[in-house]
Amino acid sequence: MQGDTVRCMHHSRVYALLIDTPEAEAAPAAAFWSAALGATARPVSQEPQFTRLDQALPGLVAVVQAVDDAPRFHLDIETDDVTAETARLLALGAVQVSQWLECRVLRAPGGHLLCVIPVHSDSGVFLAQATRWP
Amino acid sequence: MQGDTVRCMHHSRVYALLIDTPEAEAAPAAAFWSAALGATARPVSQEPQFTRLDQALPGLVAVVQAVDDAPRFHLDIETDDVTAETARLLALGAVQVSQWLECRVLRAPGGHLLCVIPVHSDSGVFLAQATRWP
Repeated sequence: MQGDTVRCMHHSRVYALLIDTPEAEAAPAAAFWSAALGATARPVSQEPQFTRLDQALPGLVAVVQAVDDAPRFHLDIETDDVTAETARLLALGAVQVSQWLECRVLRAPGGHLLCVIPVHSDSGVFLAQATRWP
Repeated sequence: MQGDTVRCMHHSRVYALLIDTPEAEAAPAAAFWSAALGATARPVSQEPQFTRLDQALPGLVAVVQAVDDAPRFHLDIETDDVTAETARLLALGAVQVSQWLECRVLRAPGGHLLCVIPVHSDSGVFLAQATRWP
C-alpha cells in the first residue's frame, strides 16, 4: 500500500496596484491620479492612509497609499493561503522585508516591492480569475 | 452670427504597467515575475530592453524594462493625441521629464513616473475602453 499523499493547493491573483506616496504629497497625488485616470477618489474608512481610485485601472484596484518612504508603486497579490503563497514567492527568489497585520511585504529580484494579502475581492471573482498553484 | 467653435477631443487609457529594473537584474526579474504571476515571458523584437509578460495582469499589458536607474514601476497611458494628452496631464500638475521617440515621460505630483504613448492596443479595444476628454 502506498502512503497517502497530502496535496495542498492554493490560489493567488494580482489584486491591486498601490501608488505609494510620501505622506505630505499623498493628497495632491490622489487628486492628480483621480483626474488623470478619470476615477473617483474615495477615502477608506478606518484606514486614512489609503485613497481608493475607483475604476482607475482595468481589472485592478488602484489605491494611493501615504507612506514614510520615497515614491514607489507596489503590487498586492491576494491569496487563500498567505503562508503558502509567501513560501512560493520566496522559493522563486523574493525576500521578506516585513509583515504588517496579515500582509507580508516582499522584495522581488530586481528590487520591486509586492505584498501578499488575504483574499480581498469577491470570492466569485477571486476563484474565477486566480491561478491555482500545486 | 456666432463664431465657429472648434472642439478637439481626444481619448486615453492606461495601457501597461512597466516593471523598470536595473539592467544587470532585468533577466532574473523577468524570470521571477513570469513565474510569480504565471505568465509567459516573451522578448520584444527590435527592442531588447523589453520583456513582455503575457497575461500577467488582468486588463493591462505587463512588461519588464531594463533601465539605467533604480528599480521602479511606471504606467503607460496610450492616446490618440499625444500632444493633447500630455497638455492635459501637465495642466493637472505633472512635469515633463524627457521625451523618448514618441513617448513623453512625465513625473506626477507625488513623484511617480508615467509615459504618454501613441495607441498601442487594438483600435477596437482602445475605443471601447478609453476615456474621452473634452
